[in-house]
Amino acid sequence: MMRILVANANTTEAITQLCAAAARDAAAPGTEIVPATPRFGPAVISSRAENIIAGHALLELLAGHSGQVQAVVLAVSHDTALEAARQLMPCPVVGMTEAACLTACMVAARFGLLTLGGVETYRELIGRHGLSSRLSGLDGVAMTPQEAVRDPAGAEAAVLAGIHRLVEGGADAVVLGGAALAGMAARLADRSPVPLLDGIACAVKQAEALVALNLPKPRAGSLAPLSGRDSSGLSAELAAMLKG
Amino acid sequence: MMRILVANANTTEAITQLCAAAARDAAAPGTEIVPATPRFGPAVISSRAENIIAGHALLELLAGHSGQVQAVVLAVSHDTALEAARQLMPCPVVGMTEAACLTACMVAARFGLLTLGGVETYRELIGRHGLSSRLSGLDGVAMTPQEAVRDPAGAEAAVLAGIHRLVEGGADAVVLGGAALAGMAARLADRSPVPLLDGIACAVKQAEALVALNLPKPRAGSLAPLSGRDSSGLSAELAAMLKG
Amino acid sequence: MMRILVANANTTEAITQLCAAAARDAAAPGTEIVPATPRFGPAVISSRAENIIAGHALLELLAGHSGQVQAVVLAVSHDTALEAARQLMPCPVVGMTEAACLTACMVAARFGLLTLGGVETYRELIGRHGLSSRLSGLDGVAMTPQEAVRDPAGAEAAVLAGIHRLVEGGADAVVLGGAALAGMAARLADRSPVPLLDGIACAVKQAEALVALNLPKPRAGSLAPLSGRDSSGLSAELAAMLKG
Amino acid sequence: MMRILVANANTTEAITQLCAAAARDAAAPGTEIVPATPRFGPAVISSRAENIIAGHALLELLAGHSGQVQAVVLAVSHDTALEAARQLMPCPVVGMTEAACLTACMVAARFGLLTLGGVETYRELIGRHGLSSRLSGLDGVAMTPQEAVRDPAGAEAAVLAGIHRLVEGGADAVVLGGAALAGMAARLADRSPVPLLDGIACAVKQAEALVALNLPKPRAGSLAPLSGRDSSGLSAELAAMLKG
Amino acid sequence: MMRILVANANTTEAITQLCAAAARDAAAPGTEIVPATPRFGPAVISSRAENIIAGHALLELLAGHSGQVQAVVLAVSHDTALEAARQLMPCPVVGMTEAACLTACMVAARFGLLTLGGVETYRELIGRHGLSSRLSGLDGVAMTPQEAVRDPAGAEAAVLAGIHRLVEGGADAVVLGGAALAGMAARLADRSPVPLLDGIACAVKQAEALVALNLPKPRAGSLAPLSGRDSSGLSAELAAMLKG
Amino acid sequence: MMRILVANANTTEAITQLCAAAARDAAAPGTEIVPATPRFGPAVISSRAENIIAGHALLELLAGHSGQVQAVVLAVSHDTALEAARQLMPCPVVGMTEAACLTACMVAARFGLLTLGGVETYRELIGRHGLSSRLSGLDGVAMTPQEAVRDPAGAEAAVLAGIHRLVEGGADAVVLGGAALAGMAARLADRSPVPLLDGIACAVKQAEALVALNLPKPRAGSLAPLSGRDSSGLSAELAAMLKG
Repeated sequence: MMRILVANANTTEAITQLCAAAARDAAAPGTEIVPATPRFGPAVISSRAENIIAGHALLELLAGHSGQVQAVVLAVSHDTALEAARQLMPCPVVGMTEAACLTACMVAARFGLLTLGGVETYRELIGRHGLSSRLSGLDGVAMTPQEAVRDPAGAEAAVLAGIHRLVEGGADAVVLGGAALAGMAARLADRSPVPLLDGIACAVKQAEALVALNLPKPRAGSLAPLSGRDSSGLSAELAAMLKG
Repeated sequence: MMRILVANANTTEAITQLCAAAARDAAAPGTEIVPATPRFGPAVISSRAENIIAGHALLELLAGHSGQVQAVVLAVSHDTALEAARQLMPCPVVGMTEAACLTACMVAARFGLLTLGGVETYRELIGRHGLSSRLSGLDGVAMTPQEAVRDPAGAEAAVLAGIHRLVEGGADAVVLGGAALAGMAARLADRSPVPLLDGIACAVKQAEALVALNLPKPRAGSLAPLSGRDSSGLSAELAAMLKG
Repeated sequence: MMRILVANANTTEAITQLCAAAARDAAAPGTEIVPATPRFGPAVISSRAENIIAGHALLELLAGHSGQVQAVVLAVSHDTALEAARQLMPCPVVGMTEAACLTACMVAARFGLLTLGGVETYRELIGRHGLSSRLSGLDGVAMTPQEAVRDPAGAEAAVLAGIHRLVEGGADAVVLGGAALAGMAARLADRSPVPLLDGIACAVKQAEALVALNLPKPRAGSLAPLSGRDSSGLSAELAAMLKG
Repeated sequence: MMRILVANANTTEAITQLCAAAARDAAAPGTEIVPATPRFGPAVISSRAENIIAGHALLELLAGHSGQVQAVVLAVSHDTALEAARQLMPCPVVGMTEAACLTACMVAARFGLLTLGGVETYRELIGRHGLSSRLSGLDGVAMTPQEAVRDPAGAEAAVLAGIHRLVEGGADAVVLGGAALAGMAARLADRSPVPLLDGIACAVKQAEALVALNLPKPRAGSLAPLSGRDSSGLSAELAAMLKG
Repeated sequence: MMRILVANANTTEAITQLCAAAARDAAAPGTEIVPATPRFGPAVISSRAENIIAGHALLELLAGHSGQVQAVVLAVSHDTALEAARQLMPCPVVGMTEAACLTACMVAARFGLLTLGGVETYRELIGRHGLSSRLSGLDGVAMTPQEAVRDPAGAEAAVLAGIHRLVEGGADAVVLGGAALAGMAARLADRSPVPLLDGIACAVKQAEALVALNLPKPRAGSLAPLSGRDSSGLSAELAAMLKG
Repeated sequence: MMRILVANANTTEAITQLCAAAARDAAAPGTEIVPATPRFGPAVISSRAENIIAGHALLELLAGHSGQVQAVVLAVSHDTALEAARQLMPCPVVGMTEAACLTACMVAARFGLLTLGGVETYRELIGRHGLSSRLSGLDGVAMTPQEAVRDPAGAEAAVLAGIHRLVEGGADAVVLGGAALAGMAARLADRSPVPLLDGIACAVKQAEALVALNLPKPRAGSLAPLSGRDSSGLSAELAAMLKG
């Protein structure tokens, strides 16, 4: 029985539940999905400042589940605090956009990324992951998440148009970024000329793969566990993990 | 019941069996490993020319199994003909070094690669995969596969020394490249300061993940299936797949 | 009369005072240095996890001074939460390693960076700033900050040896990274063959320059101010700045 | 008397003859052009899979001419098996797109590449050659080779329009890629605002230059000749060259 | 009292005076601006050849002021002979486009550059500065400097349209390149959605910052001063500086 | 009858003659080598400042031969003013290090560069040519040109040792940079494990190839000829070429 923590990085419980449901759909039999929402932070992350604040909230959340799960999926398309979470936790940690992009590398020579709204932070994120040369382009559909909810058919049409623009620009596959597009990959699969990658589904499969590989925690390097680090004003669990 | 073809790209049956055994160790319950060896080509690939010849042999081999397996693992550390195999086959295709490097990206900020002998073709391969910025360094242990077989303890010591050099140079994890190092990752796991990635094991887990994601074959882009392509002198199955 | 906030990102007041003193030495007449220490977080940042936690602490600290200073210098060598702080605050924000690297670009074709201990996070930081091609190399002196304090002459000798290694590797100037090296640039200036860049001094001069240029806050793009963002559990000032 | 093998990589004899004629036009007095067509393989290469198969066919073809020519021009715009051929053969080997791009570097700050149809494999090829930063853009004219043959004036107009788009995008010269554009460079020279590079012509001149430089075959490195390599099922000549 | 040489690289005295006036506007109280125009060379630099010639003229000009100023601003948007001037002179030397781009890095995640006419040499310049990954795009307004002078309102409208295109493409700030746009940044500040960077203003502030930092001249590396170099046909001052 | 101008960029006539002799050795029958030395400038270029000054001297020199030669070889290892010369002249212009590096790309996967003394400006030059990813490493032999002349056997031994270091680092071929190594490639050919590339020889062959290709002068783009450019204080021929 494998338990995967699906950790939201913002405080909107509905998004946590949405992601947990998607994770359950993707999980293998015998994988239990454990949803979790931070105690504090932004309602929805849509800026650099919110993403930093949410990083702390997320690490506090993870610390509270350390030792109780075999893997963590970060249910936030910005891969918030990913490397820090990887260092902190004794188990594998996977980011949803990271997982979608790495998976895309196995089904595409170059992939595109589509999201609602601005694309610049996704461009930076893919650069941070070192995958810029595999990225054919980014497409920001000019529609807010709220508008997408109000007009699902219009949203699907707009997303499909964006997918076609990305294919025209050389994409062999398209990563759908952002919680607002959850479930869209499955709904549009038949109408898209190339595979669509859903972050949560990819992250769950990668988390399962990492658990199966049973890799040891590093004892050296930039992701080695913490020990003897002092702090103040943090949750007891987080402070304890820094202390080692 | 999932069937994964473990396709060697050279004609040495013993290497096929070695890889198949490693694949069975890594496979999930319910995954059947189907080993396969090409009809013609180099005994062992260790040069650019042999790698090209083996590419054709591998595609012919794959064509003979098309429709009979749910995924393909290329059991050759050069990821021979990987993108071509991906285009040709109706199912997911994963390269063993590709899989190890992508997996390394989820457990390391930067990873190293260690092999016996020359490292330049691995440097190129990682560049072709677009992962150069995630590569901390390469280490070529000065020992032939034959010497490694004759002196396993010496080989392990030499590999461990190389791993420590790579960690010193910034590696958070190390990919072991080449059939001669098969099984080494597991044997050295306790003595290595960072996780060691085994190509076959990573590739099997990635193949299982891709099958579970059930992504459609692209209908557009550089990996869309072939159709109407004429050829001569090829195996009937391979010619038929080009013809579509 | 210009007021520059010198904001530490960890909770060790002594480091704040050290940086504030260095900032006062570098400041122009008429520049007032306002030191500040976060309410919570790690005592000293030396890991990815601490850096993320400190990011939130830093933003909270900045929010408490918003509108009361003309510029912010981040007194932390990891340039913690730099872009987020830039987006959040109505005034210029400068990171100390960022400032040292950008200044180095004006006195060097390629520059090196020297620090005590591990170099990998500095390599990533310079990559994040887009300056990798201007970096000739990194040198991590094998000495802890505590050892450097106990043996200042030994530390200076070790740092000078590292500087010579970097010059040998093509550095025209060397950035000294980390609070433990504060003041070292001035002390070693006569003995170093190339200019040494001190983060706090560079950041103060860059902050003064930005204030003098009087650039407007962007109304568009990835650094445009926040507005209408909901949150919970944050300090009143930080929540208010997200709300806009 | 210099003999240059003009080796097609696909089995369409008419393309071999077309390329041989172009090669003769470009060759210096005293250079003999020896055309050659593979024994097996795709009729025309237009996919990744065909390119891999053709690589083997090409190496077999070259092995059959080893020692009888002073240089080899690969008459295939994908530079099929180029590095392998370079390693295999005792004489210089030049790819036609490689030659056109390297030549373009001497008459352009940045060059464009124009072809009929998809551009992605050319983007990869130029990346493999390490010349991406010299590439201003790619233009894929929406016309099949068959359509171009049926409507030469229309094809010329479409190509000229593409050339102007590339110049607008910063190209100082344009490489014409693909056999379907053979001869087009000369016909459009007067109407193009920038030089047009023909692959066969450039490759012949580079082959002549390399022969004149009389560089020795490397005895070390990744292109050193093969020796002692076992294989099965290959042509006698190719097997002999692997055996060394 | 700080004296900054504002050195034009072409021989049009009116441009020197324009730049000197802009420099005086930007300078701190107590900074004296010393304008200078070369003895020979192109009237206005608008090509690669003119830029090379102007490099010599500029170095001759600087040599004539060596020891009489505390810093040099190169009042030429091509940063003509920047690294050479840096090596030659005993004081800091700042290029105006260099300064604007480095300053842009502190107020933007990615910045755009806008100029009148062709953009390719600016693309190369930013590449030479190692800042390509911070550049979101270039925009060449289709208007000559003469047309801009004749129709200032039209020019402003055209520049604003270009700024909006760059912001659409991901720019958080825009560098205005070229003498013809001097003063435009200030005039358009209120109407631009992102900060506009003026080269002369940025360069003056950076020069003042470098003087305040009081960095020593390197004694090693690629910018160490010249000594014992013979020459002929140069101005007495320039020859003397090469002689050391 | 083809005439190639072999243009030195410094004023040491002996170097001009040395290069002209090497050029004659490499030239095809029927190629006349026309040596030329600038009227003014540094005796020997070994710094950034000298290189800039020499750029003007070189362009003046070329202007004096415009229309009288079919191609130009720049006989200076820094490829001084290469792009400007290319724009200025009506015929092909080739740099000697450029030619050696491009030629190396056809006989090596990655090449090294060896010179006497500092390597940083060569690293920059190869970056400017866009070939950094093809460069395996640089080796600066610690010997002055004067010492090399006094002890030719010692110089050969030192160069061979450097070549072996570069091969160890992944070089398939080595470019010898700098006039002091002229003729060394031929002398060491038998003792080097990989091909050695001589700049003058490669440049002459590339110049002949470009003349044979008979490419038109561009009418658009960044290398289009000059017209209507005013200047003062230049040689009559150079001023006339700017005027067009």
